[in-house]
Amino acid sequence: MRFPPRLEQLLNTLRRLPGVGPKTAQRMAFHLLERDREGAAALASALQGALQHIGHCGRCRMLAEGEVCALCSMPGRDHALVCVVESPADVGAVEESGSYRGLYFVLHGRLSPLDGVGPAELGLDSLAARLRGGGVREVILATSATVEGEATAAYVATMARDNGLRATRIAHGVPIGGEIEYVDGTTLARAIAGRVVVDTDGEPGH
Amino acid sequence: MRFPPRLEQLLNTLRRLPGVGPKTAQRMAFHLLERDREGAAALASALQGALQHIGHCGRCRMLAEGEVCALCSMPGRDHALVCVVESPADVGAVEESGSYRGLYFVLHGRLSPLDGVGPAELGLDSLAARLRGGGVREVILATSATVEGEATAAYVATMARDNGLRATRIAHGVPIGGEIEYVDGTTLARAIAGRVVVDTDGEPGH
Repeated sequence: MRFPPRLEQLLNTLRRLPGVGPKTAQRMAFHLLERDREGAAALASALQGALQHIGHCGRCRMLAEGEVCALCSMPGRDHALVCVVESPADVGAVEESGSYRGLYFVLHGRLSPLDGVGPAELGLDSLAARLRGGGVREVILATSATVEGEATAAYVATMARDNGLRATRIAHGVPIGGEIEYVDGTTLARAIAGRVVVDTDGEPGH
Repeated sequence: MRFPPRLEQLLNTLRRLPGVGPKTAQRMAFHLLERDREGAAALASALQGALQHIGHCGRCRMLAEGEVCALCSMPGRDHALVCVVESPADVGAVEESGSYRGLYFVLHGRLSPLDGVGPAELGLDSLAARLRGGGVREVILATSATVEGEATAAYVATMARDNGLRATRIAHGVPIGGEIEYVDGTTLARAIAGRVVVDTDGEPGH
């Protein structure tokens, strides 16, 4: 036994955090106990508050404190646009870009039959009901650019088209500020295949 | 506002942990809320348990659950040896090496007059009382090999000698398994200055 039992327990629970190994857990525990006891108390109560009050939005499955999340009930959002993403973090990233004024649907995963993740696990029945319900014009597929993400996008696109809706996929290509030299071959191939006509005024068109 | 208020609060408190920035805090919060709510509850209660019950050992200033820590009250430890370290993590490291059977004294810092850390802040008056109290034979100085660590070691060594006790410093040199080629110059200079005579039977001696 190196440390008092309650300290060992704190170390063990800190190690359940993603990316935290024994050394990091120790650094965190000592920091909290020696230099930031107030922070430790704040963290404990924030965890409990979050556990008690945060669930999923009944409409978009985003993390939410009430029945319906703040985004879904926000006036001025375009309810005719639904952006389908894999995780709450993706909603945060799109919101931070400041380029989107529609609503979301969070899958909490992607289709992966081998891991037992099918349409039901991703809540696609509730998305289907929402698409059938009317009021939606376009479904924007912002799942990841992986094999499973693409399969999920294709599946949801079919669902949208079956309801007579437009399905779009976010563009893939060279990141802004990226040096062509350092971009991987797959991305570059995709960027070339997805090239757009440059208008004479310098703006790209289709 | 990107996330519900209680989630934002959790993100902010997670960022008080050392080495945790906005992205890591987000990864941790989503992991806890989406995949490990049990772990989040365990972490909250471990934090509260630790805050309530963990203080400092009255003898060695190590983190402890009672008045006196487990190490100080453990039978079979050599009370004549006191190893002086800078932090509780150092006690953990020395204990893990399995090479020491004496007691400790934790400074919780090192002498740094410019930062207002003097002998009183390091609890050296209580160490002095312990050294005067008799029963101690040797003080082992295991402070870090930095300017401040060396100054602290020198200060405590003087205290020990004033009480007629032996003061020793842990050895500094090339780490075991270290390639000479990659060892920094200061360490190598120290290793050469601190060289020991090799006995004819192959064991180093003094």
